[in-house]
Amino acid sequence: MKVALAQVNPVVGDLRFNTDKILSFISRARDAAADLVVFPELALTGYPPKDLLLKPSFIDDNLAALERVARACTGLTAVVGYVDRNDQPVGRPLRNAVAVCGNGRILSRHFKTLLPTYDVFDESRYFEPGPPPGSVAGGNVVSIAGVRVGLTICEDLWNDERLIPRRLYHQNPIHDLHLAGAEIIVNASASPFVLGKHDFRLELFATQARAVGKPLVYVNQVGGNDELIFDGASCAFNATGQLIAQAKDFEEDLLVVDIASQSPTASDIHPHRTGLASLHAALLLGLRDYVGKCGFKSVVLGLSGGIDSALTAALAAEALGPARVFGVAMPSRYSSDHSVEDARKLAENLGIAFPTVPIAAMHDAYESALTPLFSPGGNGTPLGDDLTEQNLQARIRGATLMAFSNRHNHLLLTTGNKSEVATGYCTLYGDMCGGLAVISDVPKTTVWALSRFHNEKHGRELIPVRSIDKVPSAELRPNQTDQDSLPPYDLLDAILHRYIEEEKGHAQIVADGFDPDTVRKVIRLVDRTEYKRRQAAPGLKVTSRAFGFGRRMPIAMNYTGPA
Amino acid sequence: MKVALAQVNPVVGDLRFNTDKILSFISRARDAAADLVVFPELALTGYPPKDLLLKPSFIDDNLAALERVARACTGLTAVVGYVDRNDQPVGRPLRNAVAVCGNGRILSRHFKTLLPTYDVFDESRYFEPGPPPGSVAGGNVVSIAGVRVGLTICEDLWNDERLIPRRLYHQNPIHDLHLAGAEIIVNASASPFVLGKHDFRLELFATQARAVGKPLVYVNQVGGNDELIFDGASCAFNATGQLIAQAKDFEEDLLVVDIASQSPTASDIHPHRTGLASLHAALLLGLRDYVGKCGFKSVVLGLSGGIDSALTAALAAEALGPARVFGVAMPSRYSSDHSVEDARKLAENLGIAFPTVPIAAMHDAYESALTPLFSPGGNGTPLGDDLTEQNLQARIRGATLMAFSNRHNHLLLTTGNKSEVATGYCTLYGDMCGGLAVISDVPKTTVWALSRFHNEKHGRELIPVRSIDKVPSAELRPNQTDQDSLPPYDLLDAILHRYIEEEKGHAQIVADGFDPDTVRKVIRLVDRTEYKRRQAAPGLKVTSRAFGFGRRMPIAMNYTGPA
Repeated sequence: MKVALAQVNPVVGDLRFNTDKILSFISRARDAAADLVVFPELALTGYPPKDLLLKPSFIDDNLAALERVARACTGLTAVVGYVDRNDQPVGRPLRNAVAVCGNGRILSRHFKTLLPTYDVFDESRYFEPGPPPGSVAGGNVVSIAGVRVGLTICEDLWNDERLIPRRLYHQNPIHDLHLAGAEIIVNASASPFVLGKHDFRLELFATQARAVGKPLVYVNQVGGNDELIFDGASCAFNATGQLIAQAKDFEEDLLVVDIASQSPTASDIHPHRTGLASLHAALLLGLRDYVGKCGFKSVVLGLSGGIDSALTAALAAEALGPARVFGVAMPSRYSSDHSVEDARKLAENLGIAFPTVPIAAMHDAYESALTPLFSPGGNGTPLGDDLTEQNLQARIRGATLMAFSNRHNHLLLTTGNKSEVATGYCTLYGDMCGGLAVISDVPKTTVWALSRFHNEKHGRELIPVRSIDKVPSAELRPNQTDQDSLPPYDLLDAILHRYIEEEKGHAQIVADGFDPDTVRKVIRLVDRTEYKRRQAAPGLKVTSRAFGFGRRMPIAMNYTGPA
Repeated sequence: MKVALAQVNPVVGDLRFNTDKILSFISRARDAAADLVVFPELALTGYPPKDLLLKPSFIDDNLAALERVARACTGLTAVVGYVDRNDQPVGRPLRNAVAVCGNGRILSRHFKTLLPTYDVFDESRYFEPGPPPGSVAGGNVVSIAGVRVGLTICEDLWNDERLIPRRLYHQNPIHDLHLAGAEIIVNASASPFVLGKHDFRLELFATQARAVGKPLVYVNQVGGNDELIFDGASCAFNATGQLIAQAKDFEEDLLVVDIASQSPTASDIHPHRTGLASLHAALLLGLRDYVGKCGFKSVVLGLSGGIDSALTAALAAEALGPARVFGVAMPSRYSSDHSVEDARKLAENLGIAFPTVPIAAMHDAYESALTPLFSPGGNGTPLGDDLTEQNLQARIRGATLMAFSNRHNHLLLTTGNKSEVATGYCTLYGDMCGGLAVISDVPKTTVWALSRFHNEKHGRELIPVRSIDKVPSAELRPNQTDQDSLPPYDLLDAILHRYIEEEKGHAQIVADGFDPDTVRKVIRLVDRTEYKRRQAAPGLKVTSRAFGFGRRMPIAMNYTGPA
């Protein structure tokens, strides 16, 4: 049996675009003599459709689109992800479904059993799960080209007690399908990228295939949808759990696999990137797709000479091409000479436009207007170097960049890294202005490593080494460095990783060998700046726990320890 | 049996504060000779604790706090909401629980069965439901002072097929408790305010009590927690479904009710407010609690002379006292004389401070800096009256207000109404700057009605009638009015209500009698400005569907109709 893994990049909600793409992949699969073509989870709507699902007209239109796909399904069978209505009178009103289409019609409909409702996933918000506990899974075994195929959707594969520390679900659909007589397992997925996750997937899927002694085919979505980056790398395993095929990572692909083959063909296994290479590829894809799917042709960002804006600009220039990137220098009275030089050198290296807007005149105007009010005697005392003054400079830059964005329809990129966003070392409505936060899930120490990687990949010093090596400074007052306010970044990032990604508390982090006062200070900074992050731009998620949609903290709260 | 309804206002996460408050209410209930005192859902942690629940140390500390409460429970029994761990090896790791405390210890633990996972609720993200389908509910019937009490938590009351159009759940815990021999039903709730909802609650609860022929006691949280406002109005019904007691709305209360009483005592039934009066009370409470629970003492906002800022200032002055409200006038070259006059009159009426910061100097400085770049010939062509220019003015005001906020530690209030926020008729990083959006869930037509209500309530023209009656204008270019860009507000609000709160699509709204092109334009405005709302301040929720946490839309999406 020849199965085509149709790894598509849909646009969320764009039923026409997605349907046309699905029809094109069906046609290509048929040309390649596939018996079965499998699309990702919710391929018709794009994943995640979020609250578009609450619009009845959207569900109607997606069902009509499925009919259009089904009519084109002749000469092969297709498994297509879509949203179904729950025809039972009780329970959530929708189903996360796949349709089996063939002979020009919908042959059967199948529902996701395990609904992830953690991190960025909200599936219990919309969907009623598939076969209830204790029921026979046989309804999800269908005969295709003489083979009994067991159908599953994404999370259905992820409840394996051998590898998952705590099983969230009471069912194991893979085991149920095995008992129901499935000869192969097919899984339609939309599994977002997280650094290191694909290696875990390969181990998990191989374990599942081996456990039931069946071939397993996993088809993942690819592309960036808001914060989420789907890495593709769809793959197939034989009945002994051996990888026999893997599609490309971070791009669309159509890969046809003979499931009967007992040994892999090297050409069918595209290598997947790991480590910094995968992080780099993920950010490029997430950036390119967010810009394109939002309908922008170009981006603008501020270039300070620092490493965060340098890396962001370099990624943008690679993702979009340098002609579509505009870097703006906005020196102030506190900017060092080397900052402007480094920013200019970066722009030259990348080949991007580099207009300069000194902010002194705006800065002076604000000072003149505010000083009399803030010094009630009207004696003209300057604001000084306090936080008000520092934020004002960042906000002048934010408004200046937004003027470029408004005037030329550039998307403004914000350049804060995860360490800054975590601790609130950033100005709301200032350097936090922007439509996309490219590196807000990348800790500062990884920003440096990724910058070196970028230069190595391109074989030259695109990002000035001085920007990588210099002491980090916001340059909002004289002789300022980040370490005036924050612990050294290697220490800070180690604490943040434990607090944010591992959810450890003060006592547990201290037990890992960190100074109690430093840990307390970092936790307090993170907790007290929740209000800033609530108003932050969406940021590309690359770790297991990013700020944004997958981390939902109260603002008006005061958890400081035991009662 | 005397039951004390302990309607408390907790601070989310503040275990010490909440525990002390619970102990104080227990003491008062004992003094009032209550047999049983009932606290709201998750009273120990405050509702909703959101992702604080993912911190194991937070769960530990809440369990320790529960032990402290239990030790103080002598001479009466208490039902206290807290977070328990799920002691089963499979399933979500936590339980939304109440403990029955007496004789100085925890006597039993009971779990919520129905977990709301829609709108602002995310309970399946954290909790495993209580007794599984088909199991006996008898474990949730406990004997207290010789009465068999059936214990439920919030949503457990909300699955009544007589009044709920679509039942989301397969169980009815009230019916199960009835079968298990409960003599009264107790419900610990945290049920947020929505305009008109309390009348529905009264009908639903009376129906439930009557259906099982048992008295019913409902204890609601009170207070504002981020976007949500809990209105209290805890109440009790006798076995025929008659209301026999109701606590105060929008404030803390301890109300002791004799459940055996067959007829109500008038003094036990505090009237609950409805309509504009309830909306007004809700916004005051939400504003006061957000400011206080975030640790601020005062607020600042811009006063334009328009009705949105006038109403917001009036609410702030009433909620916090006029000495804690600072209204800033920031006239521009386009501000009309009457605008500044109206703003000044408002400030005088309210008795709030009214500094003035003309924005001309900053505006000129930006123009001088940007004009050469935006007119490449460097011929000094002014920016003109385009959107860039309009946004710049709004952003100068935003930065000016944030300078006041930074310098004096005022919380900045943003003043946009729901009609503006829906259509994007507002400037990101401009008038959208602020820590709390007080009226962002109040449509413009209701803003006018609420302003008149405010004046009537106070018996004088606090909000200048001219601000209510004048033609709305953003005053960002000469002779501008809102209706240059938007349909008339009565028409706009009618379409928005159908699109946002009723989730109707284009065809359904047109079928209600609206012009197809106008509807299309409004839908497009709403969809295309999702990116602005993603970065908006949290806004007080008063309708069934507010922007913010309970409405989760993709940004990079393109749903425009069928494929």
